Amino acid sequence: MALDTLKARRREDYGFTLEYRTRWSDNDMYHHLNNSIYYFLFDSIVNTYLIQYCNLHPPTSSQIGLVVHSHCDYFSPIEFPAVVDLTLRVKKLGKSSVEYEIGVFEKGKDEVCAVGGFVHVFVEREGRRPRKEGMGEELMTGLRRIAGEEKARL
Amino acid sequence: MALDTLKARRREDYGFTLEYRTRWSDNDMYHHLNNSIYYFLFDSIVNTYLIQYCNLHPPTSSQIGLVVHSHCDYFSPIEFPAVVDLTLRVKKLGKSSVEYEIGVFEKGKDEVCAVGGFVHVFVEREGRRPRKEGMGEELMTGLRRIAGEEKARL
Amino acid sequence: MALDTLKARRREDYGFTLEYRTRWSDNDMYHHLNNSIYYFLFDSIVNTYLIQYCNLHPPTSSQIGLVVHSHCDYFSPIEFPAVVDLTLRVKKLGKSSVEYEIGVFEKGKDEVCAVGGFVHVFVEREGRRPRKEGMGEELMTGLRRIAGEEKARL
Amino acid sequence: MALDTLKARRREDYGFTLEYRTRWSDNDMYHHLNNSIYYFLFDSIVNTYLIQYCNLHPPTSSQIGLVVHSHCDYFSPIEFPAVVDLTLRVKKLGKSSVEYEIGVFEKGKDEVCAVGGFVHVFVEREGRRPRKEGMGEELMTGLRRIAGEEKARL
Repeated sequence: MALDTLKARRREDYGFTLEYRTRWSDNDMYHHLNNSIYYFLFDSIVNTYLIQYCNLHPPTSSQIGLVVHSHCDYFSPIEFPAVVDLTLRVKKLGKSSVEYEIGVFEKGKDEVCAVGGFVHVFVEREGRRPRKEGMGEELMTGLRRIAGEEKARL
Repeated sequence: MALDTLKARRREDYGFTLEYRTRWSDNDMYHHLNNSIYYFLFDSIVNTYLIQYCNLHPPTSSQIGLVVHSHCDYFSPIEFPAVVDLTLRVKKLGKSSVEYEIGVFEKGKDEVCAVGGFVHVFVEREGRRPRKEGMGEELMTGLRRIAGEEKARL
Repeated sequence: MALDTLKARRREDYGFTLEYRTRWSDNDMYHHLNNSIYYFLFDSIVNTYLIQYCNLHPPTSSQIGLVVHSHCDYFSPIEFPAVVDLTLRVKKLGKSSVEYEIGVFEKGKDEVCAVGGFVHVFVEREGRRPRKEGMGEELMTGLRRIAGEEKARL
Repeated sequence: MALDTLKARRREDYGFTLEYRTRWSDNDMYHHLNNSIYYFLFDSIVNTYLIQYCNLHPPTSSQIGLVVHSHCDYFSPIEFPAVVDLTLRVKKLGKSSVEYEIGVFEKGKDEVCAVGGFVHVFVEREGRRPRKEGMGEELMTGLRRIAGEEKARL
């Protein structure tokens, strides 16, 4: 996706939002959030959504999501002790896989600081292969609610 | 301090509180917050307090706090995506050093899940030795506000 | 234990050693390993030992170790990209619990940089309570090999 | 780059290698290295290279590298306590920016487990803007040594 499109993202482009406080250790030697930390945040909003809206139970669910690709573009730095708004939408929904897009906004600012995402392939816990029939109905239904840029608010 | 005393801690025993959302990666293979994560949280509430109430500016302040000891007692597990209340008090305030006590409470529960703390020695950024006159006045004044069990609320 | 005793620790006081490379993100804003990182390292050497010498298999073993207490004393800083030697001994071995002591040495230096430890209580995976008979035989036998200060080398 | 090309990467396609031991906390609830951890490893090999071969001194160097983009493709899981070989090459070298590619190999296996990378823009520590003349000579010279697929071995 063109960088200009991503830089223009606003909170209302996403269907699900979660507020996160940064941690002391998120800052690296250059006094801002280390690039890797954003992926911890991505994982956190996605799995919170899967648990709350798709009935995922990580320790026991028969299907789990494995990450096969991830990426992030960083536009402006964030510094502890800032509070961030994470925003989530489903960019592409396949039979067994889903691509998420996540925006990272600093509390009190309109411009997006970073936009990234990752691809989950849902596989059987045992064997770790996708099911022939694809992901379960609860996953599909839950993910559809924040698919596209339809701005459904949860 | 006796374990029974620590287990009996309640939110009102502390002078400063901060709400923190847990992260996916905080859970380890046993599906609960890894013991190390608590120390990341301790660092976060203490440094937030130092920045907001003691005028610490980590990248430039002439005095910085070095951790010389830390410890934690764990009473009951916490699992992502739980939200926690961190609570802070100053247990002992010396000339150049301070001992913090931090409580970790799960949102919606009265019983404390873990109590720990650490000792900061304030040293000069250059040289990393304590000043003869001890910590600066702003640090001392800020830390005094949450010293003891006086239940001053911020 | 007296701080002087801990500061005098040398590599040969421990029965098991593992070399660890530090990571960029281990350093915090003050350019040295953050105090919390030491606990990640403690967990790593202990669980490596449990897996390699006590037949622990974290995803399936019927007994798992829960941390009920941890602590660390820090004597001198370590900076990425340093390499460290972690050293492990069993300080106290009970029926269901074990107390570990871990030393952190910087490659090429004799003096210990930090000494800490934690207490594991072995519980049943289901129910998370200690077994009446205590920890399994393989755990007990493996842990005994590095108990005390007998300097058995692995 | 085509996924097939990346999956075919071998250790000898890269100019710099570093061995890293995984940590207990690297594994997430699904018992394998969390996807975010790879980025911590990327940062670690790149900055070790910059420190050892390009004379970077993170706390004081006049130019520092800011990450503006990062990505990773994951081919097969890695589990603590595995040891990994990280491998590094410079994929593209501009005036002020550099794109790295990093391979992650499990000790004892030929197939690559993950391939990712990121883009550093070198900026002035103060002001955080690229210099008109681009990155310093030592950076340029050091990075050129592992540019392309020339298999220069360090």
